[in-house]
Amino acid sequence: MTTSTTRTPLLDPPELPATMRAAILHRQGAMTLATVPIPHLEADQVLVQVSAVGVCGSDVHYYEHGRIGDYVVDHPLILGHELAGRIAAVGSSVDPARLGARVAVEPQRPCRTCKQCKAGRYNLCPEMKFYATPPVDGAFAEYVTIQSDFAYDIPDNVSDEAAALIEPLSVGLWACERAKIKPGSRVLIAGAGPIGIIAVQAARAYGASEIYVTDIAHDRLAFALEHGATHALNAKTDSVEGLDVDAFIDASGAPQAVRSGIRAVGPAGRVILVGLGADEVELPVSFIQNREIWLSGVFRYTNTWPLAIQLLADGKVDLDILVTGKFSLSESEAALKAGKQPGQLKAVVYPGR
Amino acid sequence: MTTSTTRTPLLDPPELPATMRAAILHRQGAMTLATVPIPHLEADQVLVQVSAVGVCGSDVHYYEHGRIGDYVVDHPLILGHELAGRIAAVGSSVDPARLGARVAVEPQRPCRTCKQCKAGRYNLCPEMKFYATPPVDGAFAEYVTIQSDFAYDIPDNVSDEAAALIEPLSVGLWACERAKIKPGSRVLIAGAGPIGIIAVQAARAYGASEIYVTDIAHDRLAFALEHGATHALNAKTDSVEGLDVDAFIDASGAPQAVRSGIRAVGPAGRVILVGLGADEVELPVSFIQNREIWLSGVFRYTNTWPLAIQLLADGKVDLDILVTGKFSLSESEAALKAGKQPGQLKAVVYPGR
Amino acid sequence: MTTSTTRTPLLDPPELPATMRAAILHRQGAMTLATVPIPHLEADQVLVQVSAVGVCGSDVHYYEHGRIGDYVVDHPLILGHELAGRIAAVGSSVDPARLGARVAVEPQRPCRTCKQCKAGRYNLCPEMKFYATPPVDGAFAEYVTIQSDFAYDIPDNVSDEAAALIEPLSVGLWACERAKIKPGSRVLIAGAGPIGIIAVQAARAYGASEIYVTDIAHDRLAFALEHGATHALNAKTDSVEGLDVDAFIDASGAPQAVRSGIRAVGPAGRVILVGLGADEVELPVSFIQNREIWLSGVFRYTNTWPLAIQLLADGKVDLDILVTGKFSLSESEAALKAGKQPGQLKAVVYPGR
Amino acid sequence: MTTSTTRTPLLDPPELPATMRAAILHRQGAMTLATVPIPHLEADQVLVQVSAVGVCGSDVHYYEHGRIGDYVVDHPLILGHELAGRIAAVGSSVDPARLGARVAVEPQRPCRTCKQCKAGRYNLCPEMKFYATPPVDGAFAEYVTIQSDFAYDIPDNVSDEAAALIEPLSVGLWACERAKIKPGSRVLIAGAGPIGIIAVQAARAYGASEIYVTDIAHDRLAFALEHGATHALNAKTDSVEGLDVDAFIDASGAPQAVRSGIRAVGPAGRVILVGLGADEVELPVSFIQNREIWLSGVFRYTNTWPLAIQLLADGKVDLDILVTGKFSLSESEAALKAGKQPGQLKAVVYPGR
Repeated sequence: MTTSTTRTPLLDPPELPATMRAAILHRQGAMTLATVPIPHLEADQVLVQVSAVGVCGSDVHYYEHGRIGDYVVDHPLILGHELAGRIAAVGSSVDPARLGARVAVEPQRPCRTCKQCKAGRYNLCPEMKFYATPPVDGAFAEYVTIQSDFAYDIPDNVSDEAAALIEPLSVGLWACERAKIKPGSRVLIAGAGPIGIIAVQAARAYGASEIYVTDIAHDRLAFALEHGATHALNAKTDSVEGLDVDAFIDASGAPQAVRSGIRAVGPAGRVILVGLGADEVELPVSFIQNREIWLSGVFRYTNTWPLAIQLLADGKVDLDILVTGKFSLSESEAALKAGKQPGQLKAVVYPGR
Repeated sequence: MTTSTTRTPLLDPPELPATMRAAILHRQGAMTLATVPIPHLEADQVLVQVSAVGVCGSDVHYYEHGRIGDYVVDHPLILGHELAGRIAAVGSSVDPARLGARVAVEPQRPCRTCKQCKAGRYNLCPEMKFYATPPVDGAFAEYVTIQSDFAYDIPDNVSDEAAALIEPLSVGLWACERAKIKPGSRVLIAGAGPIGIIAVQAARAYGASEIYVTDIAHDRLAFALEHGATHALNAKTDSVEGLDVDAFIDASGAPQAVRSGIRAVGPAGRVILVGLGADEVELPVSFIQNREIWLSGVFRYTNTWPLAIQLLADGKVDLDILVTGKFSLSESEAALKAGKQPGQLKAVVYPGR
Repeated sequence: MTTSTTRTPLLDPPELPATMRAAILHRQGAMTLATVPIPHLEADQVLVQVSAVGVCGSDVHYYEHGRIGDYVVDHPLILGHELAGRIAAVGSSVDPARLGARVAVEPQRPCRTCKQCKAGRYNLCPEMKFYATPPVDGAFAEYVTIQSDFAYDIPDNVSDEAAALIEPLSVGLWACERAKIKPGSRVLIAGAGPIGIIAVQAARAYGASEIYVTDIAHDRLAFALEHGATHALNAKTDSVEGLDVDAFIDASGAPQAVRSGIRAVGPAGRVILVGLGADEVELPVSFIQNREIWLSGVFRYTNTWPLAIQLLADGKVDLDILVTGKFSLSESEAALKAGKQPGQLKAVVYPGR
Repeated sequence: MTTSTTRTPLLDPPELPATMRAAILHRQGAMTLATVPIPHLEADQVLVQVSAVGVCGSDVHYYEHGRIGDYVVDHPLILGHELAGRIAAVGSSVDPARLGARVAVEPQRPCRTCKQCKAGRYNLCPEMKFYATPPVDGAFAEYVTIQSDFAYDIPDNVSDEAAALIEPLSVGLWACERAKIKPGSRVLIAGAGPIGIIAVQAARAYGASEIYVTDIAHDRLAFALEHGATHALNAKTDSVEGLDVDAFIDASGAPQAVRSGIRAVGPAGRVILVGLGADEVELPVSFIQNREIWLSGVFRYTNTWPLAIQLLADGKVDLDILVTGKFSLSESEAALKAGKQPGQLKAVVYPGR
């Protein structure tokens, strides 16, 4: 419960280089390693020397398609938004005592002045600047900047990889928060990929007593059972109808899984759509009405890092189990392609290597 | 604010007749007036001599199609579930002082012992017995029974018609409650039929500052503007996109209205589907996810009669304006057909006439 | 997670005796063992042959003082409201398949028709009939009756004692529910007696990451640390000021502990008063105002048995550790006096012995 | 509902004077009019030429006692935090189109980066800089600065005085928000001074159907009845026990009123303490526990200006009725003393006169 945090001075500000290496996505399918200027450090920011970056499905999507919805890679872009590192420099209004701290980075910059920000929903800020979303650069680079309060100290017993993967863990925690999972909850999770496994662990941390997971891959289901699921169901052959769960979290993005998952929810239950799929999906509206089910999604997360760090430090969540591939910065392109292989969950890039 | 309630002894229990007149639906499209036994009075019930019954779309649907979903009229059924009357007899465990009271009836009988009932969500009780839903009889009859606590005293300044229409008003209030309408809320309501007009009035009572209503009928929009809407929009020609309302209440059941209404909702807003339409509807799922919109429906209501009576007594809601047709019990079939005429909102049947 | 439940036919209804043994409290300090008629079984009730009954502080208080507040023992009364047993007979409207089931009893009978009951707050029902509260008899007897839905099946891996102690566990769970304890919460609990230890376990089950416990007895603090507390503080010498916890649960009833506990709560935190003490207590009102702290209490519980059973079955809570004394029915008076001894937490009476 | 807002260019930035007149509180009871430098304008701020400032009880308290709790006037201080004005200059990152706008000022500067701010509770920010709270200057001056997003445009149909008094109105709205007042609520408000009258109007705007007000002054009670209260009670002679209201808002700060008000609250009701009195007050703790009442206070407000402006523009709240004294800046000391006279509610200072 009590955790220690080591702060190792890393680089004196004067020694900071003027440039850094970064993996640059020029356009769909075209990525190169380049030397670019170190990002400019604002007064309220810290400069983080990146130690580990996870590869997310959205990174892969930008690489493969050059766009996600209205966000188009029309200028060179650095991908990556799941990251940890060490504070290498601090802005003029930041406490210099932070220098050297190991930190996990929450990769978003809300405006802090709009209605959403002031209501505590900064993830919904219309002026949000989010890492690796054009035109905002991400973390497949030696250095990044972030507002000081979005760089969270991590204890010694949390690995760099785990600290980086707090970003996807936050999605799972936020889904559980919005699904109102609590002790005794019965939960259905569709999809046993990285987000599904994370949702399983998050649901267990929130006290769920029954966690049903569906997938079509036998090995993924077995892995889910090892890490918190209480029941595994084959999405092709097993029906979830009548489960009457308290909450359904979709981590598949598959319309059919969404529809059958909703029909597994009991009266006054909740549906949280995490997986991304088609813009429009046919949903069982009268079922939702007749049971007064609440349906929503998660858009990133708010204020989840402190809890995530606590759960990791206490061993209630294990993110290291997700890492199935390790890559140097120059292998970033390979890292983006790694997820296609069977058995792969999470690739991690180490910009220092 | 202070209201008086007159209690007129109506009939001494010994004088109660053994039979009553009722409009019986035998099957799709076949309704006759018949003489049937007065319903049996349980210990915790009151016998209500019905003064007024509103005609609801579901009554019309049973009459025209002989079924709604899995509920089939395979035995003779009395329709009608929007009603007021006078207490003509009380069960053995009910306070005899209630005799003669004018009451509005909440037409549902939950089990009171299941998980949903004990959590305060008796409308979601799986054992619910609801008026005019096969095989439970309704109120196109001279007498009905209801558990005493579901018969609510009404003050003298509330008409029989208004008291009967507390049932649909409850749907509107429950929608506003679930939509979290409050002072300053900006609300979009699709459909200006009876439920739409009721939702407008309910939203105004909850303090909404802007109430947008959409419909395709010019006269309905004009009527909505007279009774609380602040803006009227033609569903065919005007766009609601970008309104960024706090809540959208659908009272149309039209898939296109539902979809465009959802796209009018701002971040963290709420969508409440009241209108009934297709079982499955294509919905803009990524829009819901990106804005973390909450979507649900209403299934009847819980604990709304006391508020409804208060709003009526205080003149904050006016239900008499909805009544566009008046019928005797023998004209019940005509009442069911009345809604098809242009300009008609609500038909009311008077079983005593 | 999957639990089995054995149902052993116990006694055929015809074999039921007409009388039973019970410990009767005649007035302050005067208790005798007597033979009395078996309680009358209503249609919606089950007759439970009591296997174990915990002794609660309120039982002791009635025994010692003959009253609690306005509730006076002016007629012979059977004490005891923490109980488990086996269904020995069922009322006419109860499924006979329940016969023989091991059950934990929720010892309250709400009216189910008032505003509070219908809103899901049946614990606040003004017509409540609660076990062992004059004039309602309790469970220091061979048999009791309870409404069937308040007798909950318990799995084989939950002991009779643990099943009986679900009642005080419910108080702790309800406190955590109202305190909004969740993963990562930091909680202060004052008092390490039975309710304090239960609150510690409940807070842990709700995911609290830091659980501070205060008491003046060293052995109680040590026991709390063994069963979930992360920090133990001596109420006499250690200060809790500045802890800035998310929630403070008072299980001491001591005015000084309540006051200092409140001052340990951070902005927007919660205070739940479980311990009973003086009717009026001086509280730090400006501290509460300046931090917008929410303060309330628990009055029994609602809908906690299913969760309690799940937590026991899953081994997330251990109630057997609380039992420090075991008594036959004829030793009930001794059981009531047992709690005064050092090191005693919970006495249990076995009416079948 | 639709409101117009006129923007009159007031002063070109080059014409801004270097100094301004201000009423300076040197220490307890010693106030002088002085010429001081215009406050420095930060990039994200606007400079507001103050048109009207309300006098608050806390201003009077600083004037009379030289301190409030730990906040001591040990350097010259400008009082006043209820204000409206016109934007006379904008900081470098503020849209110049705001120049000339009539605005109401929310007089607080939260840090925007702490846990409380990011959770949407910026009023509880431990780094808060609040007007007229040592050492932060307030508004008895010709000019003030405020972050641009805390200066809210006001429509033409809202007077300068009303715009200034949005600050105390916000306290009343925030109290109603926290008290969960909604349509049909029954509310008790203790104290019919300025905050009491504002709470009455706020409760009415939130839809309360019964609003009981207590005071000892007959004329204040009469005034409350004129402006929204439905019942007036003499605090000396009338009892509120048994009212069983849904919410009790204390605007008196009198311990006896707080205690009797709490005893007027029904099961699951809410108590919001607005009035400031003694640091510690004896409260009926068992009453709170037995009814599971929630008790809290308000500490200023969050995000209330938009709603307040809407209610004023719509005529649902009337603040002009509170103004009982008007003073020039040189009469500030007289304004601070005006509230002692009988019949006085709110003094307003006009720094431009």
